[in-house]
Amino acid sequence: MSEQLYTHLNKYISVEAHDFKKINSYFKPKRVLKKEIVLEAGEFCQHLYFVEKGCLQQYFITDKGTERTVQFAIENWWMTDFLSYQNKTRTDFYIQAVENTRLLVIDRQDQEQLLQEFPILERYFRMVYQIAYGSSLMKMKYLFNFSKEELYFHFTEHFPEFAQRVPQYLIASFLGLTPEYVSEIRAKKRS
Amino acid sequence: MSEQLYTHLNKYISVEAHDFKKINSYFKPKRVLKKEIVLEAGEFCQHLYFVEKGCLQQYFITDKGTERTVQFAIENWWMTDFLSYQNKTRTDFYIQAVENTRLLVIDRQDQEQLLQEFPILERYFRMVYQIAYGSSLMKMKYLFNFSKEELYFHFTEHFPEFAQRVPQYLIASFLGLTPEYVSEIRAKKRS
Repeated sequence: MSEQLYTHLNKYISVEAHDFKKINSYFKPKRVLKKEIVLEAGEFCQHLYFVEKGCLQQYFITDKGTERTVQFAIENWWMTDFLSYQNKTRTDFYIQAVENTRLLVIDRQDQEQLLQEFPILERYFRMVYQIAYGSSLMKMKYLFNFSKEELYFHFTEHFPEFAQRVPQYLIASFLGLTPEYVSEIRAKKRS
Repeated sequence: MSEQLYTHLNKYISVEAHDFKKINSYFKPKRVLKKEIVLEAGEFCQHLYFVEKGCLQQYFITDKGTERTVQFAIENWWMTDFLSYQNKTRTDFYIQAVENTRLLVIDRQDQEQLLQEFPILERYFRMVYQIAYGSSLMKMKYLFNFSKEELYFHFTEHFPEFAQRVPQYLIASFLGLTPEYVSEIRAKKRS
Protein backbone atom coordinates (compact mmCIF):
# COMPACT_ATOMS: atom_id res chain seq x y z
CA MET A 1 0.00 0.00 0.00
CA SER A 2 1.17 3.49 -0.78
CA GLU A 3 1.68 5.52 2.42
CA GLN A 4 2.52 8.42 0.17
CA LEU A 5 -0.78 8.49 -1.71
CA TYR A 6 -2.72 7.84 1.51
CA THR A 7 -1.11 10.86 3.16
CA HIS A 8 -1.64 13.04 0.13
CA LEU A 9 -5.32 12.14 -0.18
CA ASN A 10 -5.80 12.97 3.49
CA LYS A 11 -4.28 16.38 2.97
CA TYR A 12 -7.40 17.33 0.99
CA ILE A 13 -10.12 14.85 1.92
CA SER A 14 -10.78 12.33 4.62
CA VAL A 15 -10.14 8.70 3.66
CA GLU A 16 -10.32 5.79 6.10
CA ALA A 17 -7.55 3.22 6.02
CA HIS A 18 -10.09 0.56 5.21
CA ASP A 19 -11.37 2.45 2.13
CA PHE A 20 -7.85 3.29 1.11
CA LYS A 21 -7.07 -0.38 0.76
CA LYS A 22 -9.64 -0.57 -2.03
CA ILE A 23 -8.55 2.73 -3.56
CA ASN A 24 -4.94 1.59 -3.59
CA SER A 25 -5.87 -1.62 -5.38
CA TYR A 26 -6.86 0.42 -8.46
CA PHE A 27 -3.26 1.54 -8.94
CA LYS A 28 -0.33 -0.39 -10.32
CA PRO A 29 3.15 0.40 -9.04
CA LYS A 30 5.70 1.06 -11.77
CA ARG A 31 9.41 1.72 -11.54
CA VAL A 32 11.08 3.63 -14.32
CA LEU A 33 14.75 4.30 -14.80
CA LYS A 34 16.26 7.72 -15.35
CA LYS A 35 15.61 8.81 -18.98
CA GLU A 36 12.99 6.09 -19.50
CA ILE A 37 10.02 7.27 -21.53
CA VAL A 38 6.49 6.41 -20.36
CA LEU A 39 4.51 8.31 -23.00
CA GLU A 40 5.47 9.15 -26.57
CA ALA A 41 4.07 11.79 -28.91
CA GLY A 42 1.59 10.21 -31.32
CA GLU A 43 0.23 7.75 -28.77
CA PHE A 44 -3.17 7.86 -27.11
CA CYS A 45 -2.52 8.85 -23.54
CA GLN A 46 -4.34 6.26 -21.44
CA HIS A 47 -2.63 6.62 -18.09
CA LEU A 48 -2.46 8.98 -15.19
CA TYR A 49 0.72 8.91 -13.10
CA PHE A 50 1.28 9.74 -9.45
CA VAL A 51 4.90 10.28 -8.44
CA GLU A 52 5.76 8.47 -5.21
CA LYS A 53 9.47 9.11 -5.46
CA GLY A 54 11.50 10.70 -8.20
CA CYS A 55 10.73 13.12 -10.97
CA LEU A 56 8.98 13.12 -14.35
CA GLN A 57 9.05 15.73 -17.06
CA GLN A 58 6.48 16.37 -19.78
CA TYR A 59 7.98 17.80 -22.96
CA PHE A 60 7.40 18.18 -26.67
CA ILE A 61 9.82 18.45 -29.56
CA THR A 62 9.74 21.79 -31.34
CA ASP A 63 9.61 22.14 -35.11
CA LYS A 64 13.33 22.88 -34.90
CA GLY A 65 13.99 19.59 -33.09
CA THR A 66 14.60 20.93 -29.58
CA GLU A 67 13.02 19.40 -26.47
CA ARG A 68 10.89 21.84 -24.49
CA THR A 69 9.61 20.96 -21.02
CA VAL A 70 6.14 22.21 -20.08
CA GLN A 71 5.82 20.51 -16.70
CA PHE A 72 7.72 18.66 -14.02
CA ALA A 73 6.21 16.29 -11.48
CA ILE A 74 8.02 15.44 -8.26
CA GLU A 75 6.67 13.60 -5.19
CA ASN A 76 2.87 13.84 -4.74
CA TRP A 77 2.28 15.36 -8.14
CA TRP A 78 0.04 13.91 -10.85
CA MET A 79 1.05 13.86 -14.47
CA THR A 80 -0.50 13.00 -17.79
CA ASP A 81 -1.41 14.82 -20.99
CA PHE A 82 -4.80 15.82 -19.63
CA LEU A 83 -6.30 16.74 -23.01
CA SER A 84 -5.26 13.51 -24.69
CA TYR A 85 -6.30 11.54 -21.60
CA GLN A 86 -9.73 13.13 -21.38
CA ASN A 87 -10.54 13.58 -25.08
CA LYS A 88 -9.01 10.29 -26.26
CA THR A 89 -6.90 12.09 -28.84
CA ARG A 90 -3.27 11.50 -29.76
CA THR A 91 -0.79 13.35 -27.59
CA ASP A 92 1.83 15.86 -28.73
CA PHE A 93 3.87 15.24 -25.59
CA TYR A 94 6.47 12.90 -24.16
CA ILE A 95 6.61 11.94 -20.51
CA GLN A 96 10.04 10.86 -19.33
CA ALA A 97 11.75 10.08 -16.03
CA VAL A 98 14.31 12.68 -14.95
CA GLU A 99 15.57 10.34 -12.18
CA ASN A 100 14.91 6.73 -11.26
CA THR A 101 11.26 7.09 -10.35
CA ARG A 102 8.59 5.15 -8.48
CA LEU A 103 5.10 5.72 -9.87
CA LEU A 104 1.55 4.68 -9.26
CA VAL A 105 -0.34 4.24 -12.52
CA ILE A 106 -4.03 4.11 -13.28
CA ASP A 107 -5.75 4.01 -16.67
CA ARG A 108 -8.74 6.09 -17.69
CA GLN A 109 -11.36 3.35 -17.35
CA ASP A 110 -10.07 2.32 -13.94
CA GLN A 111 -9.94 5.91 -12.76
CA GLU A 112 -13.53 6.36 -13.89
CA GLN A 113 -14.56 3.27 -11.95
CA LEU A 114 -12.57 4.42 -8.93
CA LEU A 115 -14.35 7.78 -9.01
CA GLN A 116 -17.70 6.02 -9.25
CA GLU A 117 -16.89 3.86 -6.26
CA PHE A 118 -15.34 6.71 -4.22
CA PRO A 119 -16.94 9.98 -5.36
CA ILE A 120 -15.07 11.79 -2.58
CA LEU A 121 -12.02 11.49 -4.86
CA GLU A 122 -13.71 13.88 -7.30
CA ARG A 123 -13.17 16.50 -4.62
CA TYR A 124 -9.53 15.53 -4.23
CA PHE A 125 -8.82 15.77 -7.96
CA ARG A 126 -10.87 18.96 -8.25
CA MET A 127 -8.60 20.61 -5.67
CA VAL A 128 -5.40 19.21 -7.15
CA TYR A 129 -6.32 20.42 -10.65
CA GLN A 130 -7.51 23.78 -9.34
CA ILE A 131 -4.05 24.34 -7.83
CA ALA A 132 -2.28 23.02 -10.94
CA TYR A 133 -4.31 25.32 -13.19
CA GLY A 134 -3.80 28.34 -10.92
CA SER A 135 -0.06 27.63 -10.82
CA SER A 136 0.18 27.39 -14.56
CA LEU A 137 -1.42 30.85 -14.93
CA MET A 138 1.13 32.10 -12.43
CA LYS A 139 3.91 30.56 -14.53
CA MET A 140 2.46 32.41 -17.54
CA LYS A 141 2.78 35.61 -15.53
CA TYR A 142 6.45 34.93 -14.80
CA LEU A 143 7.18 34.07 -18.43
CA PHE A 144 5.64 37.34 -19.56
CA ASN A 145 6.93 39.57 -16.77
CA PHE A 146 10.52 38.62 -16.29
CA SER A 147 13.61 39.04 -18.39
CA LYS A 148 15.30 35.72 -19.17
CA GLU A 149 17.82 36.32 -16.43
CA GLU A 150 15.19 37.24 -13.81
CA LEU A 151 13.17 34.20 -14.83
CA TYR A 152 16.05 31.86 -14.17
CA PHE A 153 16.99 33.34 -10.79
CA HIS A 154 13.38 33.66 -9.67
CA PHE A 155 12.85 29.99 -10.42
CA THR A 156 15.99 28.75 -8.71
CA GLU A 157 15.36 30.92 -5.63
CA HIS A 158 11.70 29.99 -5.25
CA PHE A 159 12.02 26.32 -6.07
CA PRO A 160 15.46 25.41 -4.70
CA GLU A 161 14.47 21.74 -4.34
CA PHE A 162 13.97 21.62 -8.12
CA ALA A 163 17.04 23.62 -8.95
CA GLN A 164 19.20 21.18 -7.01
CA ARG A 165 17.87 17.91 -8.34
CA VAL A 166 16.92 18.72 -11.92
CA PRO A 167 19.75 19.10 -14.44
CA GLN A 168 20.38 22.66 -15.59
CA TYR A 169 19.54 21.90 -19.22
CA LEU A 170 16.04 20.78 -18.16
CA ILE A 171 15.47 23.91 -16.10
CA ALA A 172 16.53 25.88 -19.16
CA SER A 173 14.10 23.86 -21.27
CA PHE A 174 11.28 24.52 -18.78
CA LEU A 175 11.90 28.26 -18.81
CA GLY A 176 12.29 28.51 -22.57
CA LEU A 177 16.01 29.35 -22.34
CA THR A 178 18.98 27.71 -24.01
CA PRO A 179 21.44 25.73 -21.84
CA GLU A 180 24.21 28.02 -23.14
CA TYR A 181 22.36 31.07 -21.90
CA VAL A 182 21.89 29.51 -18.47
CA SER A 183 25.62 28.69 -18.23
CA GLU A 184 26.40 32.26 -19.18
CA ILE A 185 24.19 33.95 -16.55
CA ARG A 186 25.33 31.52 -13.85
CA ALA A 187 28.98 32.29 -14.67
CA LYS A 188 28.18 36.01 -14.63
CA LYS A 189 26.58 35.72 -11.19
CA ARG A 190 29.52 33.77 -9.77
CA SER A 191 32.06 36.28 -11.03
CA MET B 1 -32.71 30.66 -13.46
CA SER B 2 -29.69 30.32 -15.68
CA GLU B 3 -30.48 28.11 -18.68
CA GLN B 4 -26.85 28.55 -19.65
CA LEU B 5 -25.38 27.12 -16.46
CA TYR B 6 -27.98 24.36 -16.38
CA THR B 7 -27.02 23.27 -19.90
CA HIS B 8 -23.32 23.46 -19.15
CA LEU B 9 -23.62 21.37 -15.98
CA ASN B 10 -25.54 18.75 -17.91
CA LYS B 11 -22.78 18.56 -20.48
CA TYR B 12 -20.60 16.89 -17.81
CA ILE B 13 -22.93 15.59 -15.11
CA SER B 14 -26.60 14.86 -14.72
CA VAL B 15 -28.56 17.48 -12.79
CA GLU B 16 -32.35 17.41 -12.39
CA ALA B 17 -34.26 20.65 -12.92
CA HIS B 18 -35.51 20.44 -9.36
CA ASP B 19 -31.97 20.25 -7.92
CA PHE B 20 -30.78 22.93 -10.27
CA LYS B 21 -33.24 25.37 -8.75
CA LYS B 22 -31.34 25.05 -5.46
CA ILE B 23 -27.94 25.11 -7.15
CA ASN B 24 -28.89 28.25 -9.04
CA SER B 25 -29.93 29.99 -5.83
CA TYR B 26 -26.29 29.94 -4.66
CA PHE B 27 -25.29 32.26 -7.49
CA LYS B 28 -25.86 35.98 -7.82
CA PRO B 29 -26.31 37.46 -11.28
CA LYS B 30 -24.05 40.41 -12.02
CA ARG B 31 -23.88 42.68 -15.04
CA VAL B 32 -20.64 44.45 -15.78
CA LEU B 33 -19.97 47.04 -18.43
CA LYS B 34 -17.18 46.86 -20.97
CA LYS B 35 -13.86 47.76 -19.26
CA GLU B 36 -15.37 47.40 -15.77
CA ILE B 37 -12.99 45.76 -13.30
CA VAL B 38 -14.29 42.99 -11.01
CA LEU B 39 -11.00 42.08 -9.30
CA GLU B 40 -7.96 44.24 -8.61
CA ALA B 41 -4.38 43.25 -7.82
CA GLY B 42 -3.77 43.43 -4.08
CA GLU B 43 -7.26 42.25 -3.15
CA PHE B 44 -8.19 38.88 -1.69
CA CYS B 45 -9.96 37.04 -4.45
CA GLN B 46 -13.22 35.84 -2.90
CA HIS B 47 -15.35 35.16 -5.97
CA LEU B 48 -15.64 32.68 -8.75
CA TYR B 49 -17.26 33.93 -11.97
CA PHE B 50 -19.21 32.05 -14.61
CA VAL B 51 -19.65 33.89 -17.92
CA GLU B 52 -23.22 33.65 -19.18
CA LYS B 53 -22.75 36.16 -21.97
CA GLY B 54 -19.78 38.34 -22.81
CA CYS B 55 -16.09 38.10 -22.14
CA LEU B 56 -13.68 38.60 -19.23
CA GLN B 57 -9.92 38.86 -19.26
CA GLN B 58 -7.49 38.13 -16.46
CA TYR B 59 -4.31 40.22 -16.65
CA PHE B 60 -1.46 41.54 -14.57
CA ILE B 61 0.65 44.66 -14.92
CA THR B 62 4.29 43.99 -15.70
CA ASP B 63 7.14 45.71 -13.90
CA LYS B 64 7.38 47.94 -16.96
CA GLY B 65 3.75 48.99 -16.62
CA THR B 66 2.27 46.98 -19.50
CA GLU B 67 -0.92 44.93 -19.18
CA ARG B 68 -0.45 41.24 -19.97
CA THR B 69 -3.44 38.93 -20.37
CA VAL B 70 -3.05 35.37 -19.09
CA GLN B 71 -6.59 34.15 -19.70
CA PHE B 72 -9.86 34.99 -21.41
CA ALA B 73 -13.26 33.66 -20.40
CA ILE B 74 -16.18 33.67 -22.83
CA GLU B 75 -19.57 31.96 -22.48
CA ASN B 76 -19.55 28.86 -20.20
CA TRP B 77 -16.08 29.53 -18.88
CA TRP B 78 -15.18 29.98 -15.22
CA MET B 79 -12.75 32.62 -14.07
CA THR B 80 -11.02 33.62 -10.88
CA ASP B 81 -7.47 33.79 -9.60
CA PHE B 82 -7.54 30.18 -8.45
CA LEU B 83 -4.48 30.43 -6.20
CA SER B 84 -5.71 33.53 -4.38
CA TYR B 85 -9.22 32.07 -4.22
CA GLN B 86 -8.09 28.77 -2.78
CA ASN B 87 -5.19 29.91 -0.59
CA LYS B 88 -6.81 33.13 0.67
CA THR B 89 -3.80 35.16 -0.43
CA ARG B 90 -3.73 38.53 -2.18
CA THR B 91 -3.99 38.34 -5.94
CA ASP B 92 -1.48 39.66 -8.49
CA PHE B 93 -4.18 39.79 -11.15
CA TYR B 94 -6.96 41.99 -12.44
CA ILE B 95 -10.18 40.63 -13.90
CA GLN B 96 -11.92 42.99 -16.29
CA ALA B 97 -14.82 42.86 -18.74
CA VAL B 98 -13.79 42.95 -22.38
CA GLU B 99 -17.43 43.48 -23.44
CA ASN B 100 -20.65 44.18 -21.58
CA THR B 101 -20.89 40.92 -19.69
CA ARG B 102 -23.47 38.92 -17.78
CA LEU B 103 -21.98 36.87 -14.96
CA LEU B 104 -23.01 34.46 -12.27
CA VAL B 105 -21.00 35.00 -9.11
CA ILE B 106 -20.43 32.79 -6.10
CA ASP B 107 -18.09 33.37 -3.16
CA ARG B 108 -15.77 30.80 -1.66
CA GLN B 109 -17.86 29.98 1.40
CA ASP B 110 -21.02 29.59 -0.68
CA GLN B 111 -19.24 27.43 -3.24
CA GLU B 112 -18.00 25.23 -0.42
CA GLN B 113 -21.54 24.91 0.94
CA LEU B 114 -22.86 24.23 -2.55
CA LEU B 115 -20.30 21.45 -3.02
CA GLN B 116 -21.28 19.95 0.33
CA GLU B 117 -24.95 19.98 -0.62
CA PHE B 118 -24.36 18.72 -4.19
CA PRO B 119 -21.14 16.68 -4.21
CA ILE B 120 -21.83 15.76 -7.84
CA LEU B 121 -20.60 19.27 -8.65
CA GLU B 122 -17.12 18.23 -7.50
CA ARG B 123 -17.10 16.03 -10.58
CA TYR B 124 -18.21 18.89 -12.79
CA PHE B 125 -15.49 21.23 -11.53
CA ARG B 126 -12.90 18.45 -11.63
CA MET B 127 -13.59 17.99 -15.34
CA VAL B 128 -13.71 21.72 -16.07
CA TYR B 129 -10.37 22.30 -14.33
CA GLN B 130 -8.81 19.22 -15.91
CA ILE B 131 -9.59 20.70 -19.34
CA ALA B 132 -8.45 24.17 -18.32
CA TYR B 133 -5.15 22.83 -16.99
CA GLY B 134 -4.57 20.64 -20.04
CA SER B 135 -5.28 23.61 -22.29
CA SER B 136 -2.88 25.83 -20.45
CA LEU B 137 -0.06 23.28 -20.96
CA MET B 138 -0.99 23.26 -24.63
CA LYS B 139 -0.76 27.04 -24.70
CA MET B 140 2.71 26.73 -23.14
CA LYS B 141 3.61 24.44 -26.03
CA TYR B 142 2.49 27.03 -28.57
CA LEU B 143 4.34 29.82 -26.80
CA PHE B 144 7.56 27.80 -26.86
CA ASN B 145 7.17 26.27 -30.32
CA PHE B 146 6.02 29.04 -32.56
CA SER B 147 7.66 32.17 -33.84
CA LYS B 148 5.74 35.32 -32.90
CA GLU B 149 4.19 35.44 -36.33
CA GLU B 150 3.15 31.76 -36.30
CA LEU B 151 1.73 32.22 -32.81
CA TYR B 152 -0.54 35.02 -33.92
CA PHE B 153 -1.83 33.26 -37.04
CA HIS B 154 -2.23 29.94 -35.28
CA PHE B 155 -4.35 31.61 -32.64
CA THR B 156 -6.56 33.57 -35.02
CA GLU B 157 -7.10 30.52 -37.25
CA HIS B 158 -7.87 28.11 -34.43
CA PHE B 159 -9.97 30.46 -32.33
CA PRO B 160 -11.72 32.61 -34.92
CA GLU B 161 -14.59 33.39 -32.51
CA PHE B 162 -12.04 35.06 -30.22
CA ALA B 163 -10.13 36.79 -32.96
CA GLN B 164 -13.33 38.44 -34.17
CA ARG B 165 -14.72 39.67 -30.89
CA VAL B 166 -11.62 40.49 -28.84
CA PRO B 167 -9.72 43.67 -29.74
CA GLN B 168 -6.38 43.09 -31.44
CA TYR B 169 -4.39 44.71 -28.64
CA LEU B 170 -5.79 42.16 -26.18
CA ILE B 171 -4.93 39.23 -28.43
CA ALA B 172 -1.43 40.69 -28.65
CA SER B 173 -1.35 40.97 -24.85
CA PHE B 174 -2.48 37.34 -24.48
CA LEU B 175 0.23 36.09 -26.85
CA GLY B 176 2.98 38.22 -25.35
CA LEU B 177 3.29 40.39 -28.49
CA THR B 178 3.15 44.15 -28.84
CA PRO B 179 0.13 45.69 -30.60
CA GLU B 180 2.55 47.34 -33.04
CA TYR B 181 3.99 43.96 -33.97
CA VAL B 182 0.50 42.53 -34.58
CA SER B 183 -0.41 45.49 -36.84
CA GLU B 184 2.80 44.92 -38.76
CA ILE B 185 2.30 41.19 -39.44
CA ARG B 186 -1.37 41.71 -40.33
CA ALA B 187 -0.39 44.43 -42.82
CA LYS B 188 2.31 42.14 -44.24
CA LYS B 189 -0.21 39.32 -44.71
CA ARG B 190 -2.74 41.58 -46.46
CA SER B 191 -0.16 42.91 -48.90
